[in-house]
Amino acid sequence: MAANEASPSEGRVLRVAGAQIPNVVGDLEGNAERILAAMGKAEAAGADVLVFPELALTGYPLADLVQREEFVAAAMAMLDELARSSGRMASVVGTISRVPARRSWDVRDRDIANSAAVLCDGHLRGLYHKIMLPNYEVYDEARNFAPGSRPDALWRIGEAIAGISICEDLWSGDGPPEAQAAAGAEILLVPNASPFHQEKPAGRRALVSEVARRNGTPVVYVNFVGGQDELVFDGGSLVLDAEGELLHRSPQFETEDFCVDVALGPPRRVAGRATTVHTRPPRAREPLPPPQASAEISADEQVWHALVLGTRDFLAKNGRNSAVLGLSGGIDAAVTAAVAADALGPENVIGVAMPTPDSPEDELRDAELLSAGLGIEFHVISLAGITAAARRGLDELLGGAPDERPSEALAARTRAAILWTISDQLGHLSLATGNKTELAVGNAAVYGDMAGVFAPLKDCPKTLLYRLALLRNQRGPAIPQRIIDRPPTVRADTYGELPGYAVLDPIVERYLERGEALNDLVAGGFDAPLVRRVLQLVDDSEFQRRQMPPGVKITTRAFGQDLRMPITNAWRPYAADHEPPIEVPLNPVRGDPPGAE
Amino acid sequence: MAANEASPSEGRVLRVAGAQIPNVVGDLEGNAERILAAMGKAEAAGADVLVFPELALTGYPLADLVQREEFVAAAMAMLDELARSSGRMASVVGTISRVPARRSWDVRDRDIANSAAVLCDGHLRGLYHKIMLPNYEVYDEARNFAPGSRPDALWRIGEAIAGISICEDLWSGDGPPEAQAAAGAEILLVPNASPFHQEKPAGRRALVSEVARRNGTPVVYVNFVGGQDELVFDGGSLVLDAEGELLHRSPQFETEDFCVDVALGPPRRVAGRATTVHTRPPRAREPLPPPQASAEISADEQVWHALVLGTRDFLAKNGRNSAVLGLSGGIDAAVTAAVAADALGPENVIGVAMPTPDSPEDELRDAELLSAGLGIEFHVISLAGITAAARRGLDELLGGAPDERPSEALAARTRAAILWTISDQLGHLSLATGNKTELAVGNAAVYGDMAGVFAPLKDCPKTLLYRLALLRNQRGPAIPQRIIDRPPTVRADTYGELPGYAVLDPIVERYLERGEALNDLVAGGFDAPLVRRVLQLVDDSEFQRRQMPPGVKITTRAFGQDLRMPITNAWRPYAADHEPPIEVPLNPVRGDPPGAE
Repeated sequence: MAANEASPSEGRVLRVAGAQIPNVVGDLEGNAERILAAMGKAEAAGADVLVFPELALTGYPLADLVQREEFVAAAMAMLDELARSSGRMASVVGTISRVPARRSWDVRDRDIANSAAVLCDGHLRGLYHKIMLPNYEVYDEARNFAPGSRPDALWRIGEAIAGISICEDLWSGDGPPEAQAAAGAEILLVPNASPFHQEKPAGRRALVSEVARRNGTPVVYVNFVGGQDELVFDGGSLVLDAEGELLHRSPQFETEDFCVDVALGPPRRVAGRATTVHTRPPRAREPLPPPQASAEISADEQVWHALVLGTRDFLAKNGRNSAVLGLSGGIDAAVTAAVAADALGPENVIGVAMPTPDSPEDELRDAELLSAGLGIEFHVISLAGITAAARRGLDELLGGAPDERPSEALAARTRAAILWTISDQLGHLSLATGNKTELAVGNAAVYGDMAGVFAPLKDCPKTLLYRLALLRNQRGPAIPQRIIDRPPTVRADTYGELPGYAVLDPIVERYLERGEALNDLVAGGFDAPLVRRVLQLVDDSEFQRRQMPPGVKITTRAFGQDLRMPITNAWRPYAADHEPPIEVPLNPVRGDPPGAE
Repeated sequence: MAANEASPSEGRVLRVAGAQIPNVVGDLEGNAERILAAMGKAEAAGADVLVFPELALTGYPLADLVQREEFVAAAMAMLDELARSSGRMASVVGTISRVPARRSWDVRDRDIANSAAVLCDGHLRGLYHKIMLPNYEVYDEARNFAPGSRPDALWRIGEAIAGISICEDLWSGDGPPEAQAAAGAEILLVPNASPFHQEKPAGRRALVSEVARRNGTPVVYVNFVGGQDELVFDGGSLVLDAEGELLHRSPQFETEDFCVDVALGPPRRVAGRATTVHTRPPRAREPLPPPQASAEISADEQVWHALVLGTRDFLAKNGRNSAVLGLSGGIDAAVTAAVAADALGPENVIGVAMPTPDSPEDELRDAELLSAGLGIEFHVISLAGITAAARRGLDELLGGAPDERPSEALAARTRAAILWTISDQLGHLSLATGNKTELAVGNAAVYGDMAGVFAPLKDCPKTLLYRLALLRNQRGPAIPQRIIDRPPTVRADTYGELPGYAVLDPIVERYLERGEALNDLVAGGFDAPLVRRVLQLVDDSEFQRRQMPPGVKITTRAFGQDLRMPITNAWRPYAADHEPPIEVPLNPVRGDPPGAE
């Protein structure tokens, strides 16, 4: 991992800059301003080439915004403006471009490519069109983009021959980078829009290193930073030498403009034609000092930063800077409040406790202590009168007093209605506090504790929340220890007693993220009847997950676009030899008992 | 459109059966039973070949259920069972199958194909793998499937040479049907899973006719019937002769087993090898009487049937047969109630009016008349006490009495909480009543009138609802005329006065379904400031649409998977020269005024 010790003055050197910047989807003016600012800085630093992230001009991902013709035209016009502003340095700018219509995997013409534009000397010198269009998990690039057809395109930038690949292009093992290196590329420039999950940074580092070694070329890998709906782009841009050793690593979750002198190997034979960007020799200049790679941060710290950045950017990019949430005295609300306080500043967060007469006194007290610890505003609104009035209204129809649990679900939904009213009235965005485990097993009340415009912890397993609380408290006690110590209540429900989260979380993860089935889980040591019950809860609660707010993806498979399941789906193999059959309501009684999160 | 007059006895005839059946996604046993029943009937009718819909064994669409290995293995095992049950007749059964791993448009291996299995004489005689994998609008087949690589595969069935194409394969104009006909196919057998929208039946008929004429081959097009989440497969299977003339059309929205004698032309030269299903000559048999094509039904009738079937199947396939919904006295609730009554039987529908003290007396009366007209159960629960209690709770925090409109939003959300409590307690599934126009312009309260597990009218423009109400009343007055006659209230809101629905609906349709921009709409005669306001409302309310229940797709582009937009999206070209800029809250005040639907 040490920086390359070879002095760049011993041979040819390409001074490569990278712009690890944010973007806002659809904000062509704002994105262009960010691009121009980075171009100015890199030109001033004497860079030969500046690499931007994928779709830096338009934002990523675009989904069906690509289908709006006026958007494509405006992006192309804005690219022309950027080209006119380019100077002696070459810039590789990710954007969309119109290409001849092509049909690839279905009968729909596609005429928009995911491209990297090469700008220099006031001109657009050419475009590389992404070949590999990821179409799995959160990605749907085959939906709207036409694939490029020139994987071996080369670019002459002064004395260097460069290849450009875009994100997925890099991951094939025998794709554009290999074609480019075989054709004579001496360095690979790679714009990316690579979203974070817990295993991504290590995988990315290993992959880029492998590509560098395989091709004997330095690789410059530039990623976005910032949140876009459910995704957080964590930066962590990389420059590796031809041996795959680290020359530079940008920090995660922060913007960075970097500039690195990259040593090129002996000239390669160039097969085929390289598009000329320019052929000027480099200006005389002092070598840059060896770059400093940013330190890596721990896995849980990465998650914390992702939650904070994802929440901040969702609000900020949608024109909001304050939030309101319900505080129950439980760990979910506590961690959500802490994320919100870090994302927005504690002065912009309002916590509201809404106890019923059954709510334990110490939990109300903990909610107040939490608010004081974080420095957020705190209010109490009693639900007693509201739910009593609702029960009176329902009594006749329901033929008697509702039992305890529907009344708790009613309380959860009444809380949500109150929070939205506050949101409507005061302009704060409402945050939902539910976690992934609850969502997985159908334990998050629809319109209840998962109500809100954004759900920061939506993809966080329950057991992770305790680690995050301890991590957050290292900066100074904020989350009361009693909230962390209180054992979570795992409800007995229609389906029987559920196990503790320390058992539930790995089952859910192995089922949803690793694709394991009943047999795998039983072989892994889990109790078969228990696994059956959990898997059925997961499969039966898909309908609930369709109505959840967006939240920050942090695992390998988040609910939503990342893991798309039919609602109507009778596949229950684990139930086949199970007796008696589990009676599963479509719209099960949901809501937490008093004292539960 | 007349049935082919040529007597099949004049030349070679293939007796083709089609099974326009329903499926349940993931229900391998149930689907196999339906398949076996159809095989028995067709064999008894002396059919030479029986064509099933696409993925008849597994259900369609499967989304990421395809990624579960145990599901793929079980489907393949079940196919073997079906093969063992096959007799002298060839059956073309849609299912998934494992194929050698292939990478096509990204770096992910895919080893599952969308296949048609040919079963005969107790054996699986071969598999055709779908070539064209639609990956746009509601389709995401490139996500999980590997494309087939043999577009020109042929099948020898007795004296006939057949080609098999699957759904999208048919639509290319130069794809598998053309390759098969060029190689010698005399008839094209086409399993489909073709979901309904208003323009689909006519488009399908024209396309199939064109394929038949282009290739000079009869085409047998077999579609599913039934609802699956947001999609309704409307059947309408077709048999066309080699001139593209209609031999048979199945009814829409109903199951049908059909059997038709199809005349084959003179034998073609067969280029390449045809897989032998069998080479037996046909048994001696009497010709079938000429088939009767089902009558076409009107466009609005098609929509009505789609709503009823989609709602019924969503409930039935998820194990429910009763529903509860809020009745406001407006057209949305009235049409939703009528759809529910037709789908489930009026005895299984419960309407609940939840008036506030401000609700007009005549609307409550209309809700009651509607319930009586439809024959559904009717209840009244006053909101007065509940919202008054909630207002008292909120007063202190909000610094005064909430203004009128947030209290209406609170009322809408309180209604939703009450309906869900009834649903929890009594087991009826809760239906949301909102329509597409409201969803489009952000006028459906999140967790309010769009709250429910299913939203039958989600994709219905408001103006369509009046036509549907009149259509429904042709069967006998059910929806009170006063509900139909009452002018809809179009709310003045944060953004200024909106136009009536007769103007709003075409703007929304042209923007979302036709891809028109501000300039197109202004050229189409709409007022520019008005269009600006509507387009901005549409774009600003995407976040609301993410939390909506599923509903029945009936237009060319429904919200959801069909029309995927980023929530965070700054693209507002129509606002560029607009002054003053519109101030758009992310979480706008929503909810209807008294008297509005």
